[in-house]
This record gives sequence, structure tokens and C-alpha cells, in this order.
Amino acid sequence: MKKSYIMTPGPVPISNEVLIEHGRPLMHHRSPEFSKIFAEVTDKLKKFMQTTNDVFILTSSGTGAMEAAVTNTFSKGDKVLVVNAGNFGERFKKISTTFGLNVISLDYEWGQSAIPSDIKKALDENPDIKGVMIQQSETSTGILNNIESVGKIVKNYPAILIVDAISGIGASEIKVDEWGLDIVCGGSQKAISAPTGIAFISVSRKAWEMIEKSDIPKFYFSLNAAKKYADKNPPQTPWTPGISIIVAMNKALDMFFEEGREKVYERHRVNALAVQKACEKLCLEMLVSDTASRGVSVTSIKVPEGIDGKLLTKTMRIKYGVTVAGGQGKLQGLIFRIGHLGYVGIFDVLVAIAALEFALKEQGWKFELGTGTTEVQKIFFENNYMSE
Amino acid sequence: MKKSYIMTPGPVPISNEVLIEHGRPLMHHRSPEFSKIFAEVTDKLKKFMQTTNDVFILTSSGTGAMEAAVTNTFSKGDKVLVVNAGNFGERFKKISTTFGLNVISLDYEWGQSAIPSDIKKALDENPDIKGVMIQQSETSTGILNNIESVGKIVKNYPAILIVDAISGIGASEIKVDEWGLDIVCGGSQKAISAPTGIAFISVSRKAWEMIEKSDIPKFYFSLNAAKKYADKNPPQTPWTPGISIIVAMNKALDMFFEEGREKVYERHRVNALAVQKACEKLCLEMLVSDTASRGVSVTSIKVPEGIDGKLLTKTMRIKYGVTVAGGQGKLQGLIFRIGHLGYVGIFDVLVAIAALEFALKEQGWKFELGTGTTEVQKIFFENNYMSE
Repeated sequence: MKKSYIMTPGPVPISNEVLIEHGRPLMHHRSPEFSKIFAEVTDKLKKFMQTTNDVFILTSSGTGAMEAAVTNTFSKGDKVLVVNAGNFGERFKKISTTFGLNVISLDYEWGQSAIPSDIKKALDENPDIKGVMIQQSETSTGILNNIESVGKIVKNYPAILIVDAISGIGASEIKVDEWGLDIVCGGSQKAISAPTGIAFISVSRKAWEMIEKSDIPKFYFSLNAAKKYADKNPPQTPWTPGISIIVAMNKALDMFFEEGREKVYERHRVNALAVQKACEKLCLEMLVSDTASRGVSVTSIKVPEGIDGKLLTKTMRIKYGVTVAGGQGKLQGLIFRIGHLGYVGIFDVLVAIAALEFALKEQGWKFELGTGTTEVQKIFFENNYMSE
Repeated sequence: MKKSYIMTPGPVPISNEVLIEHGRPLMHHRSPEFSKIFAEVTDKLKKFMQTTNDVFILTSSGTGAMEAAVTNTFSKGDKVLVVNAGNFGERFKKISTTFGLNVISLDYEWGQSAIPSDIKKALDENPDIKGVMIQQSETSTGILNNIESVGKIVKNYPAILIVDAISGIGASEIKVDEWGLDIVCGGSQKAISAPTGIAFISVSRKAWEMIEKSDIPKFYFSLNAAKKYADKNPPQTPWTPGISIIVAMNKALDMFFEEGREKVYERHRVNALAVQKACEKLCLEMLVSDTASRGVSVTSIKVPEGIDGKLLTKTMRIKYGVTVAGGQGKLQGLIFRIGHLGYVGIFDVLVAIAALEFALKEQGWKFELGTGTTEVQKIFFENNYMSE
């Protein structure tokens, strides 16, 4: 008998309420019933993203939305600036080169966040840059970029700003309109806490102007096709969507608003703090040394010398039922990552740290059992985490 | 956002696997499909109870099975011995007096277990006793009676032995045939970890002989009616049963056998030990002072002086989402009870103790936060609780 706990930066735990919606019999995607829900979810996503821009629902992973952002807006040979501070920065580069763009890469050490003035400098030096791509939360390291500052910079240039907010939005503040973000990508399986399989993307007027001129071929991810069907009365999707996931998202978004944006952010802040402080008490080192750069969605922890990182996460998963993530790309084997975004509460964090303690202890790491969990309890108690 | 954890001695947590079965579309109770499942569950219950006696499924709470045991076997004015060590001993007394039996009550302090030789003495002094009723696990206090010894005594007398094993069976050893237990009652919502609503009852040949002579009126709970329908081909129930619960039990029983009886017992032993040791570290006193009398299904903890017990369990439930049970009958307000039977794992116990710590701390109880959870972790680690 072993219960499963998913503590990765996506997929994340899903509430019973959302799972029940997800389990409802499927309605047809051309039915008025589905159109009604589709319109509701689109409206809720706009509110979630704090935007009046168009927002489209794509049946794909977040990577699909990243590809849609690139292939819809640019033309072959366009110069783009990719802010690259981890595996998902790399992904923007790969997508861009795949579709024939001319990529300038602004590289940071993995574990560091981007410096907004570097972006200004690159734009000044390359006035022909058509777009800037950046992660809000870089899922592979756990850093959070200062998207507000970047937005304020890019809006003064002809370039559009494309933000991969997949693991950030809903956990950390992002104001699409106020911060001037042209394209923002999100996914169903992150802070919204619905099943995997749906992405969403917001598109500004400035982005639309580029979409009209784009010459890269796209079919499934055509935002023009999405808009044509979304503008129908009743609204639809051009292709068959992930119906059950959209229905689940409808409930999950309701739960986000019921809890309240500020409370959700605060919950994520305390979850992240508890994980980080507990790990430090266990004499583990954070990948992101600068506390100001740390996000609240996922924490990357360095595998200490003498510990087999792969065995550590395997023990947590196989023996204790707690799934955490390993390192990606060049950080494979060097870090492990504890996700704490979405439908994650105080006791999920407690369980994750307890499982980590057991797995560390089994490899002979020196510490008093209970050191990490005690710290988790203290952080939660001090931050008056739960309210009646 | 608050997750719910149910740590009571029934209902207990239910696995996703069982909930999925429970959620299947209902089949008709006179269909061959249902008869097949009904026969399977009956067979699995016999294996679960370690008996070749008849086993019947009743659509009722456990109390229904207790009433069935009494009304089917005895006749008005029959002398019965009720072993009374708590609220459920009291219940056997109430049922017996309601149906006109002449009750001899063998009373113990609540928190003490029965002394088998007392039963022998009562039987010797009252050779006209027709039946002995006893709890295996007295849910209101957490004690475990030595049913093996009691069985060996009673089988030498004309009296039948009726055992309420509702919160005991599946968590603690009980061998219906080997120990000579005439009637044993169980429920779906305890160690089997299915939803509430189904009881089951085993009936020995010695009990059947009394059933044939019984003059107490019974209709819904008639074991003769149950037998008549169970003997049909295909087997059925006389009245409409709780179909979805029986379907769920089918899966839950499979999971019991997959995990393996010995492993299930060991899990319960360690769960109970962790709760008890953690509470003692928090300077709380157990109701059952004699460790040998303590069962593994539920732990009763005395509300210490200066602590409002009702507020304590309320805080745990309302603020932290962890439901534990209060005291029953004359122990109301004096104890609270943490259930740890059924689909309960290491991390459920950890969460319950963490929530208890928070609630104690809020009332100013003096201890270092993390003391209880650290002890839980130590007990689990020392007992090598999880295996790959």
C-alpha cells in the first residue's frame, strides 16, 4: 500500500472537484453546450491573465503554444532575441532555428535570472530585432524573471515580447496588459491545476500586426484559424479540442478565483519558502543562490557530494510514492526539483520533505530525522498559513 | 484552499482505485452481472474472515449486523452476557434489551480490555446463558479484546459467541473458524476501506441451530431470507442492496489480498505505534494505559487539563482539514480519537500529527513544534515501514 504524491512542476496535484468535472460524459465540440463552456473558459482565462487581448485555447502542451507564438508572428530570417537561462530558453531557441529565424541568444548561467538592462542593450544594438522571447518562470532552474521590467523596455521598440509564463502564471503575478506583454503562453497543468493537454495564448494588437505579415507555414497552430472559429457565434475551435480538459479548467479557474489571486500567491510564497528553508536546514544547497531570483513554482536543489541524485529521486518515488523532478538538460544528475505550484497545500510540502529526509537518510546523509519537517511546520505556523 | 484528510475510525480514506469502481454505472441487482460480483464478494469476505461459515452481505451500517446477530439467534427472555467496555458494548446491551433479552452485563472501565476468565466465570455461574457478545476492537476507547481466548472458552458452553469485529477485522488478526467464533460482524467502511453502507456477518452451524428456534420478529435483517436468496442460482439479496458499495468492496478486497494480510497488519501496527509514540512525545496521555490492551485501529488520547478538546478537534478540522473523532458516550469531551485503520499510510499519520501539533500550539500547549512529527518519522524509519 503506497499513496502517490506528485510534487513536480507539472503535472501538479488536481483537486477532487476538478477531477469530478473532468470525469463527466463528453459533450460534442460543435454543440451549443460546449460553445458555452468554451466561451466561459476563454473569458476566465482573460481574467486569469489580466488582459483584454485575444486569448486562444490550443489543444497541446505548453510547447505547442510556444511554437504557435513563434510560427504565427515571425517570417523566415527574422532576427529574434532569445533570453536563455535554462532548458526552456533553449527550447525557444530550438523552435526559432527550426523555423528559420535568426537567433541572438542572451545566455545566463542556469540558476541566474535575466538582467532586464541586457535586453535593452541588445535591442539598442540590434534595432532590427523583431521579437524578444523569455520565460517568466524558468522551470528547469526555478528562477523568476522580472517580466514587468522587461515589458516596460520592449514596448518602446518595434519588437514584440513573447513570454512563456507556463509554470509562472497563477503562482506569481503577471499583468499582461499593464506590463505590455504581447504574447503570453500558459498551460492547463500548472498553477491552474487541471489535467495536462491544453495550452492558452494571449495575443496583443502589436502581435496581430506581425501575424498578418508572417510567412512561416502553420496549420494546426494557426492563430488566424483559431480566431476565425472563436469569432463564430457560438464560438468554437477549428479542430477537435480536449473537451474534458477544458471542462475541468472551467472548474479549476473558478476555484482559483474563489480562493482569490492574492491568497493563491501567498500560498505559493509560503510553500516555496518552507521547501527552501527546510532543505537548507538539511544542509542542502539551492541552485538559485540569489534569493531574490527564486520563483515560487519549483525549487532546484543541488545534489550534494556523496549522494546519488538519481537514486535519491527514485527512492522517493518508488519507496515513498513521492514524485519529484530531476534536472533537465545540462543539470541532469546535478540537481533535483521539488514542484510546489498549483493545488499544493501545507501537508503536501510536509510529505515531500519527509520523503526527502527518508531518501537522504538511506544514503547516509548526516542530519537529525525530522529537521526538515520541523522547519516546514515552523514556517507554516509563523506565516499563519491557514485561516478558518 | 484546504485539502481534507479523514483520520477517524470509520469512514476511513478510500483509494482512487476503489472510488473509480464505486463510480461505475449501476448494474441491476437482479442481473447476472451483479450476481457474479455478489458471489465474488461473498467468497472474498469468507477468505477475509478466514471462515467456511455462511457469510451474508447486509445493506446497513455495522449496527444493522449487530441487530441481525441478536434478533436472528435469540428468543424473548433469553439470558445473554454482554461484555461492556465502551460505547459499542453499551450498544449490544441496548439492542438486547430492546428485543426483550435478559442481559447480564460484564462491565469494565472504559479504556480497559475484557479479562477472558471473567467470561468463563459468568458462564459457569449462569449455565443458561444463550450467547456472549463482545467487541474485538472497542471503537470508543481503542482497546482490543483477546477474542482468541474468549472463543476457546465459549465453545465449551451451549452459548454462542457474537463478535462485533467491525473496527477490528482486517486491521488485527481474527480467525473465525480456528477461534470458534459463531457470529462475526464487519462493515465496509473500516479496514476494507470502501464507502459506508454495507455490513457483513458470518454464521456458524451452532448459530444456525439457534436461528431455527429464534422467536424474535425480524424482516429486513432476516438471515433466513438472506440465506434463501444467497442459495439461489445465481445468488442474490432478498432486498435491493447497495450495489455500488458492493462493487467497490470487490476492488477493496482485492487490494487487501494484493497487499497481503501480514503486511496490512504490520502497517496498522506501525501506524498505531507512530501515533501513540508521537502523542506521548507531545506529553499527551493515552486513555488505554496498558499497552498490551491497545488496538491498532484507533487511538484514544486524553484531553489534557487546560486544553479545550472540542476546540482542538474543531481547529484540526476547520483550519487544517484533518478530521479526527471526539469521545463517545461518557468520554465525550474527555478524549479525542485518531483513526489509523484502512487505507492509511505513513504520510497520513504524519499529517494528522502535524495538524494536532498546530491545534495544540494554538491553545498554548507547551512543546517544540515538530516533536510529534519527528517521532512519527523515526518510528517509520526504524520499523522499515516502506519496502520497494
